[in-house]
Amino acid sequence: MPAGTLLYAQSGGVTAVINATASAVLQTARAKKVRVLAARNGILGALREDLIDASALSAAEVKGLAHTPGGAFGSCRLKLKSLADDRAKYERLLEVFRAHDVRWFLYNGGNDSADTALKVSQLAAEYGYPLTCVGVPKTIDNDLAVTDCCPGFGSAAKYTAVSVRECALDVAAMAETSTRVFVYEAMGRHAGWLAAAAGLAGEGKDDAPHLILFPERPFDEADFLARVDAVVKRVGYCVVVASEGIRTADGTFVADAGGGKDSFGHTQLGGVASHLAGRVKDALGHKVHWALPDYLQRSARHLASGTDLEQAMAVGRAAVECALAGQNAVMPVIVRDGDAPYRWHVDIAPLARIANHEKTMPKGFIRKDGYGITAAARRYLSPLIAGEAFPPFGRDGLPNYVTPSMPAVRRKLAAWRG
Amino acid sequence: MPAGTLLYAQSGGVTAVINATASAVLQTARAKKVRVLAARNGILGALREDLIDASALSAAEVKGLAHTPGGAFGSCRLKLKSLADDRAKYERLLEVFRAHDVRWFLYNGGNDSADTALKVSQLAAEYGYPLTCVGVPKTIDNDLAVTDCCPGFGSAAKYTAVSVRECALDVAAMAETSTRVFVYEAMGRHAGWLAAAAGLAGEGKDDAPHLILFPERPFDEADFLARVDAVVKRVGYCVVVASEGIRTADGTFVADAGGGKDSFGHTQLGGVASHLAGRVKDALGHKVHWALPDYLQRSARHLASGTDLEQAMAVGRAAVECALAGQNAVMPVIVRDGDAPYRWHVDIAPLARIANHEKTMPKGFIRKDGYGITAAARRYLSPLIAGEAFPPFGRDGLPNYVTPSMPAVRRKLAAWRG
Repeated sequence: MPAGTLLYAQSGGVTAVINATASAVLQTARAKKVRVLAARNGILGALREDLIDASALSAAEVKGLAHTPGGAFGSCRLKLKSLADDRAKYERLLEVFRAHDVRWFLYNGGNDSADTALKVSQLAAEYGYPLTCVGVPKTIDNDLAVTDCCPGFGSAAKYTAVSVRECALDVAAMAETSTRVFVYEAMGRHAGWLAAAAGLAGEGKDDAPHLILFPERPFDEADFLARVDAVVKRVGYCVVVASEGIRTADGTFVADAGGGKDSFGHTQLGGVASHLAGRVKDALGHKVHWALPDYLQRSARHLASGTDLEQAMAVGRAAVECALAGQNAVMPVIVRDGDAPYRWHVDIAPLARIANHEKTMPKGFIRKDGYGITAAARRYLSPLIAGEAFPPFGRDGLPNYVTPSMPAVRRKLAAWRG
Repeated sequence: MPAGTLLYAQSGGVTAVINATASAVLQTARAKKVRVLAARNGILGALREDLIDASALSAAEVKGLAHTPGGAFGSCRLKLKSLADDRAKYERLLEVFRAHDVRWFLYNGGNDSADTALKVSQLAAEYGYPLTCVGVPKTIDNDLAVTDCCPGFGSAAKYTAVSVRECALDVAAMAETSTRVFVYEAMGRHAGWLAAAAGLAGEGKDDAPHLILFPERPFDEADFLARVDAVVKRVGYCVVVASEGIRTADGTFVADAGGGKDSFGHTQLGGVASHLAGRVKDALGHKVHWALPDYLQRSARHLASGTDLEQAMAVGRAAVECALAGQNAVMPVIVRDGDAPYRWHVDIAPLARIANHEKTMPKGFIRKDGYGITAAARRYLSPLIAGEAFPPFGRDGLPNYVTPSMPAVRRKLAAWRG
């Protein structure tokens, strides 16, 4: 058994397949006889010395993680500041790493996590502590630089495209005497990747979704309403997919247009779909329904993309391999070798090229009129939702998701007062 | 080929498996060499003489219907009044039936459709027109009398239980530093059947969903908030499932508490989940997310229940058989022969026992504290979500749903001026 411990942690919003990455990390480390600890709730668990002996998980638990959504070890939203501003925290991390002989640190997350992993590697170098830091990509936002796509995105994209195709069949059946307009709200505060994926649900001009609203384009209400009405007149109904982050030309989030407080002083939590539905009803008089799948879209492991699952596991394996090979301050990334047939491989990129960079959607992915996706977007997106990877279901009709045992590692340090 | 035509129509809110019933109707009629027409958009198509030659559909189209959600022939929300009040419409129906030699009428829907089928049969008898009317059960509301359960409900119930299990894993991972309370809004204006199905997602005291809100119980905000807070303290997070139809003790729909108009005079479309989320945020200060799956829950054919699919097809077959046998003014119903192992068969019940009766959820299905389901509810619900029936997926990662050709039948009558 190699000397030293590998510490794995999950960070940021979880996905349908981040546990598949964890499963691959554990399996690969196990094969190489490396001890693995997991930090509970991401970097927070490392700061608190709240560690789980992941090497003690049974083979069945490790295998089961690959088909279980959520973040089994707990995640966190905690962005560490610069080394100068948060030095006490970074030093505490090194103290915990030293206490548990952590030589390899794998941080599974998005931009902020890549930044944290990079800074930890810099501090370790500064203090002469032998540590290899590897970021492991994960985000449904698909906004990490360098990598062609982000594990987690493909499954959320598949959920979105399938759900929109299904809803559209429902609305089509009801439109004559009931709902004529349906608004589906997709996650995406800054980039319309998931809204774009909805575009895969249809191909022809009259196929749903008829209108996609991207945060990359300013929202013009009058133009939008005129288009909705035109689609209803032409097709009989209209399916709209709206990114949660769309804004008007002056930069105001459309989701904030509703909300506020009601007459009792109670907070009204709105959303883009609810707001747009209200406008359609008032301005056009059409009966309208809307959906806000929220966490469903990123936890729907039952509808995971086969491509996404493979990639999530591949980056987990690669992360362990390059950590053990001493490749410091890097992240395994997906490189696309071809669209059709889709081919890809894993490469290794420096964290410095990834941390704090945000990949936006190429302009050529949005149709000129601003309400749909282009052929280039389809070529990019389509292989990412290909393949099914259903979890095993029990006789009770529910997926057999696992809740692994979480054997705590005995603390060696005084409690953290951060 | 027997003389005469069978007319099939779909009515009311569609489901993930109503087209499976249609598929079974067409297959059974085909085997018996009976010509089938379908009315476009339910009874409306019959009134308008807007008929589709369903016998001309290819075998592949008929087979494909069994795995396609929505209502392929179009549905409608149109309740005919009494024979006295709507006599002109009923007479027009008979006129259309006579023109196309319709001898068997199958109406696939819920309570209102059963009522319509019953009245049409009464009118035909009054006029001496030889017609056999058969209702075919369908509703995600599970509120039809006599039948043990309603085709369509099991699939929506499975979607609900699976989605809540998945979201709960997401929230559990994020709760330490982010979302602590999650509210899922389930369809159910009058009865909490789908909210109850969410209860299948967990078994132990601390499993999600932690609180279920039923329309059968008055909503007490203070008690609810206290319970949410207690669950967050005990478990770390709280997953709430709320029926859209919950009301306070004075009968006010909670969903109406928000909504209304904003300061611009724009309609605010709220919902129960959005309202409850706002209250949790204001009163308890917990970060909260909520989901409104809306039509997704009734169109998610990708997650259909195997039991539900079998039953949807069985009632379709039985409907054709009893129509051809001249059993008038009846509906095939599901009879439960045992819970574990689950056994059932199809029986035939008079429409008079079903039309305008509403089956409510048994009192013994809701836990005494009002916030969960009982063992009796589990025994009833569990077999209804058992079994998977995934649709075929294409290489593009999307389900291969079919859009059958809709060959129009030549009109023989003057246009309807109803």
